[in-house]
Amino acid sequence: MQIGLLGLGKMGAGMAYRLTKGGHQVVGADISAAAREQVEAEGAVAASDVASLVQLLEAPRVVWVMLPAGKLTRDAIAELANHLSEGDLVIDGGNSDFRDAPAHAASLGEKGIDFADVGVSGGQWGRDNGYGLMVGASSEAFARIEPALTSLSADGDYSLVGGLGSGHLVKAIHNGVQYAILQAYAEGYALLSAHPEVDALAALEAWQGGSSVRSWLLSQIIAALQANPTLEGVTSQVSDSGMGRWTAEEAIRLAVPTPALTLALHQRFASRDDGLANKLLAATRNQVGGQKA
Amino acid sequence: MQIGLLGLGKMGAGMAYRLTKGGHQVVGADISAAAREQVEAEGAVAASDVASLVQLLEAPRVVWVMLPAGKLTRDAIAELANHLSEGDLVIDGGNSDFRDAPAHAASLGEKGIDFADVGVSGGQWGRDNGYGLMVGASSEAFARIEPALTSLSADGDYSLVGGLGSGHLVKAIHNGVQYAILQAYAEGYALLSAHPEVDALAALEAWQGGSSVRSWLLSQIIAALQANPTLEGVTSQVSDSGMGRWTAEEAIRLAVPTPALTLALHQRFASRDDGLANKLLAATRNQVGGQKA
Repeated sequence: MQIGLLGLGKMGAGMAYRLTKGGHQVVGADISAAAREQVEAEGAVAASDVASLVQLLEAPRVVWVMLPAGKLTRDAIAELANHLSEGDLVIDGGNSDFRDAPAHAASLGEKGIDFADVGVSGGQWGRDNGYGLMVGASSEAFARIEPALTSLSADGDYSLVGGLGSGHLVKAIHNGVQYAILQAYAEGYALLSAHPEVDALAALEAWQGGSSVRSWLLSQIIAALQANPTLEGVTSQVSDSGMGRWTAEEAIRLAVPTPALTLALHQRFASRDDGLANKLLAATRNQVGGQKA
Repeated sequence: MQIGLLGLGKMGAGMAYRLTKGGHQVVGADISAAAREQVEAEGAVAASDVASLVQLLEAPRVVWVMLPAGKLTRDAIAELANHLSEGDLVIDGGNSDFRDAPAHAASLGEKGIDFADVGVSGGQWGRDNGYGLMVGASSEAFARIEPALTSLSADGDYSLVGGLGSGHLVKAIHNGVQYAILQAYAEGYALLSAHPEVDALAALEAWQGGSSVRSWLLSQIIAALQANPTLEGVTSQVSDSGMGRWTAEEAIRLAVPTPALTLALHQRFASRDDGLANKLLAATRNQVGGQKA
């Protein structure tokens, strides 16, 4: 199929590569000339802005937006609404807040433009091995983009997980779960490392063998440790992308207990904070009697 | 090699199967006649007690103990100490408390008998696909049992993770990490399920595709839900094997922060308790002003 891809960053470029390789006619748009040249070299057509991207596509058009979440994505969808026509379809594949989907669907819908949201997982690994795709869409929109989904994924690893907004919701919760899984492995590694008689990296490698905690994330942890066994030069301050926060907020909105997911998020906050609460604890412990508290 | 296997329960029987299939001469001992008949049918020699097991093995002997952790294992190792001779080797492959290893090594060592501890992971799946093996031993003892480890595992999935006691320590922390990973997935599933517009099982299946949280544990969660989508008849009270407790105790002993691992353990306790703390919270909330607290 013909597909427009707006945003040729790390994820967008990898997707353009898989789509072109899958025999699709890709029109890729990015402000970076280097990004455009790369997809052109791989067989795609390149555009430098939304207007020319839309002009290069035949109606009814499909445009996949793969931009950083937030203002950039919202602005791009607003601009697409101005240039696209009835019967076109916009897909937001970025790590967007799932609560943005209804507004996008409404503003595009006013002009008869359809909208779908897809959570894309896989990063650099996905470029070569296929992305995991969580699609929130009507069944019509899903059927329309299925040829592209097939090429982007491996072994049919794409699913219609629900109606509009569901793709980004499922991706947000996916990332919230990922924080907690990584936290579990990291704590386990720290506890192993507190034992001088244990080879902590060999232990993780043993886990990644036939054991029940083997996983793709553990393979990445092992790769990081093999490359830098002492983690020299690595900061202990852990960033977060925002998706864990949306997961925690959604759990609060619906009063669903998610203590492990929320704890993992707060551990990331704690890794970066100024220790004010701890300072107050230390001061108060001293205030109320020192060694006894 | 020739190897004695004391305990032919689910794990021991599976190991006897893999060892016999691997060309090893297995002498399997169990009090259950049915278990003995099964390993005999698969080509092993069977014994009904420790004394005859030891008699059937040629010195220097290797006896792998695969019994339920605790008193049964401790008693069996004490009995082996009475029957074995200098130069023999005892392996504890059960889910034993890693803090038992020094005492076993000392009591066996008095008679010149060597000791090793191996954490075995894989369950029923491991019988057919190979176990993950975490070995705590001297390098001499490790080399001595390596032919058996090769047959028990797949693709060389066995590791010397450290000296004596390390195998069970690494297995305990492994299980502690597993509690937290399962807790993370379970919370994610509950949050997904709170959205009627989302197909929660389809979302997990999408995760198990090309996404970064794909894992063996997630494949098991999906299998459980496919077999029983509404989890009808399943209790919400979650048991624990004790290994998560040992992990939490070890973290306290060494003052290593493991909030996620410890939380997952306490969530299991909370799933089974009588709600006394919650009753007091509800009563106190009422006491201090009802709707406002």
